[in-house]
Parts: sequence; C-alpha cells; structure tokens
Amino acid sequence: MIQRPLILICNDDGVYAPGIKALTEVMQKLGDVMVVAPDSPQSGMGHAVTISDTIKIADMSKEVNYPKYSCSGTPVDCVKIAVNKLAPRRPDLVVSGINHGSNSSINVIYSGTMSAAVEGAVMGIPSIGFSLCDYAYDADFETAKPFIHQIAENVLKSGLPKGICLNVNIPHTKEIQGIKVGRQAKAFWDEELDERQDPRGGTYFWLTGVFRVPDEGKDTDEFALANGYISVVPVQYDLTAYPFLNEIKNRLEHVGENQKG
Amino acid sequence: MIQRPLILICNDDGVYAPGIKALTEVMQKLGDVMVVAPDSPQSGMGHAVTISDTIKIADMSKEVNYPKYSCSGTPVDCVKIAVNKLAPRRPDLVVSGINHGSNSSINVIYSGTMSAAVEGAVMGIPSIGFSLCDYAYDADFETAKPFIHQIAENVLKSGLPKGICLNVNIPHTKEIQGIKVGRQAKAFWDEELDERQDPRGGTYFWLTGVFRVPDEGKDTDEFALANGYISVVPVQYDLTAYPFLNEIKNRLEHVGENQKG
Repeated sequence: MIQRPLILICNDDGVYAPGIKALTEVMQKLGDVMVVAPDSPQSGMGHAVTISDTIKIADMSKEVNYPKYSCSGTPVDCVKIAVNKLAPRRPDLVVSGINHGSNSSINVIYSGTMSAAVEGAVMGIPSIGFSLCDYAYDADFETAKPFIHQIAENVLKSGLPKGICLNVNIPHTKEIQGIKVGRQAKAFWDEELDERQDPRGGTYFWLTGVFRVPDEGKDTDEFALANGYISVVPVQYDLTAYPFLNEIKNRLEHVGENQKG
Repeated sequence: MIQRPLILICNDDGVYAPGIKALTEVMQKLGDVMVVAPDSPQSGMGHAVTISDTIKIADMSKEVNYPKYSCSGTPVDCVKIAVNKLAPRRPDLVVSGINHGSNSSINVIYSGTMSAAVEGAVMGIPSIGFSLCDYAYDADFETAKPFIHQIAENVLKSGLPKGICLNVNIPHTKEIQGIKVGRQAKAFWDEELDERQDPRGGTYFWLTGVFRVPDEGKDTDEFALANGYISVVPVQYDLTAYPFLNEIKNRLEHVGENQKG
C-alpha cells in the first residue's frame, strides 16, 4: 500500500486562526495532514526560537480526525518540535499559513509564517509559506484555494532544491489573474513610534508605520500583487552576499595581517 | 567643526551584558556612541518585532557620558526606535554585540544580534554584528578588541553596499590568526527535545541539540573559526533564490493559467 504524503501545517496567527483552517482543508485533499501551531498569535516573531524558556504542547487531536497540537512556542519551535517529536513519520511537505496579511518583499524577514517555512527548508523538507493580503479575521480564503492546491501539488510532485522554500502571497481580490514568479521587491517600512502616556504618567510606544515600495521593477512580488497576480518568490536561507565577497576580502583580510604583525 | 561619526550600539544579550560594554569601549575610540539595547536577554529572537505589545524605554544616560537606553522590545525594535526616535542625528554605523556565543553559519537567522545588524542595513546604514564563540558571562573580549576596532574603522571609512551588512565571528582563543572573509557554511542544529514533567505531572520540553557542520569547504565561516581566524561573512536580506527563478517560473506560471482557464 502506498502511503499518502504527510503534510505538516503551521502558521503564526495561532492554531485557532481561520487561515490555518482553510489551509488544512486544501491539504487534506493532497495527503495526510498534521497541524502544529502556536497557542496564541505570533505575528512578527521572525525566526525566533525559544531557548530560555520551556515549551508546552497540548494535544487537540480528539477534536478533529488528524493529529493537531497547539504549542506555547514560536512558529519555528512548532516546526522543530513537530518534525523531531510529534510527527508519526518525516513530513513530505511543510506548509505555513494561510497568513492573515501580506508577507511580500521585506516582510519575509519579520514573518513568523515564512520563518516556519524557512525552518522546514533548513530541515531539508520542501516548504511553502502562504499569505493573503488581507488582515481581516474573516478574510475570504476560498478564492485562493484552487491555486494553493495546485502550487502544493506541484511541490509535492517535483520537490524543491535543498535550502530553498517558496513565499506565496495572494492578492486581496475576487479576480486572481494567475501566478507570477519573481524576486523580492526592494521595499521598507517607514516607521513611526506612536508615543503615549500610561495612566501613571510613564511613556510608552507602539511601533507603527507605512509600507513603501520604491522598487519599480516588473519582476517583483509587489508588482505581481498590485496587478492581481499571486506572487511566488523562491527564498533561500544562505544569506551570504556572494557578489561582495571579493571586495570585502581585499578590504579586510590584510587588516588582520597588519594586526597580527 | 567636523562632527565625529555617530555609532549606534545594540545587542541581544541585554544592556547589562559585558559584551556590549566591551564593544562600547572600542567604539568610543572611533566616534560618538549611543547605546540602545534590550532590558533583558533576547537570545534567539531572530528578526522578531513587537507589533502586538507596547515598547518601553528607560534613559540610563546619567550613569555614563553618552546616550544610553534600555528597551523592553527585541533587538530589531531597539534599532528601529533608536534611529527613528532617540538618536540625535542619523547614525553613521550600527554595531551589534559583542554577542556571548557564536552566530556563524545557520545561526545568523536565529540571532537577535545579527538581526539588529540586518535591520541597520534595511535602514541603509552600514552595520556589523560581532560575536565571540564563548558563551561564558565573563568571556575574554580583550583579545578581539584591536580586530573589532580595525573592522569598524574600515566600514566607517569605506562603507558597505546598500542591503549588505557584516557578520563577524571571533574564535575563542588567545591566539587569533587573522581575518578570513568567506561564505556561510552549510550547517544545522541536530535538535533534541528534552522532555520533563512539571510538579503537577504535566509535560514540558526544553529545546536543545548538537550543532553539525557537514560542509567541508575551506571558504566558510566555520573553517575560519576552527583554524583560529576571525570570520567575516557579508550578509544580505534579499532572500530571493535567483538561480532557481526560471525553473520555478516554468513549473508554476502555467499552473495559474490552467486554473484561470
């Protein structure tokens, strides 16, 4: 008997978020599913791991017909504990999301959703992060479902190169134009610190800001999304800036020599 | 009168860690310093940002002869709030560390220290993360100081390309052999979940593991460190896996077409 693929599902909005429910529904058509997700929202957690505190797991499998766990840790913790401890066999695919809100361009480095997918790739498992460009709790995940199904099916069938996962962002529209593969746009958050007084007169801040995309390239994720396409960016965790290696070598290695001499 | 460069100093071990004190001592020789660092240890926080909670700042400047603040947020929060709110002028350099423990190879993505440096680069400021491969609280930071001075001086003088910062790791030795510039080694954490019972019979876990470096390349950070050299890796935050763009384009864009049709 051929086993169905095992698909591990994670997110950063927490195990109760509608987005992970929608993603689970799609994945159930493609394989055996397993959910391990944070017990509370963890947006903006990036690639954080819990090393100075304990991690607690609650088994929610009885509520559903598949293994489902909530985890007190970060999205990356969820993937580590799922693969190393909870999974009945090694997952064939890790999917994360569907995130409530965009993880395009620079947001990839702040995103817990994408960090869970990156962690899957670190472990050598084909991995995909899905995000919908709508922060609403009751966002419409239905329109995207057939696309998510086909992208995941393609990755299950053909795999991904070692060290690479996919960052999939879905535009907030009923009329998805198709899929565009491209690069991470050059963009940034124009931050503001919203300064307030607490009831005892102390000062505190909320981090807020406006997202800016100066990049006018037509090969970017932001361009795809702005034109109604699902954007797919292949993402790697080797952060080495290869084109700059030689220059900085010439600048710094002799510094070391001088110092030693 | 020519202004001295303004150097923003951050870390992830917290404002009271000996490592940031050592780094501040070196930077005071190169410019005007400003410290904004977490009020408690934040190791393993990756690129986390505080978006669902408030951020509090305490002014510790009276203790010292330069602007010094502790911050309730993450290392990345510290850089954002420093540059956008607290700095008297735009910093010319962001340095992070000296971290108590290695941030070589894959650790770059888990590291709060390196994420602070990456955030500096996102803001367009030349940035460097420094880490010493010794987790001890009373580690010897003196041996590394002349090298740190020269690397920072070089970056202050010649800058760094937009979108690139440096990951500098210092071996735990009295006999530093010099500086080697290289790529991030292929390495991973072979994780274990240490399972324990709490006093009420509940189960909890500690994330632990062994660091593995299967990569035998002589051009890596791990090779440099193992041979007594300071390793320097230029790090970028554009995570696009460019060599894989065309292949995944061919695989997925027609999927979208079929779906739309």
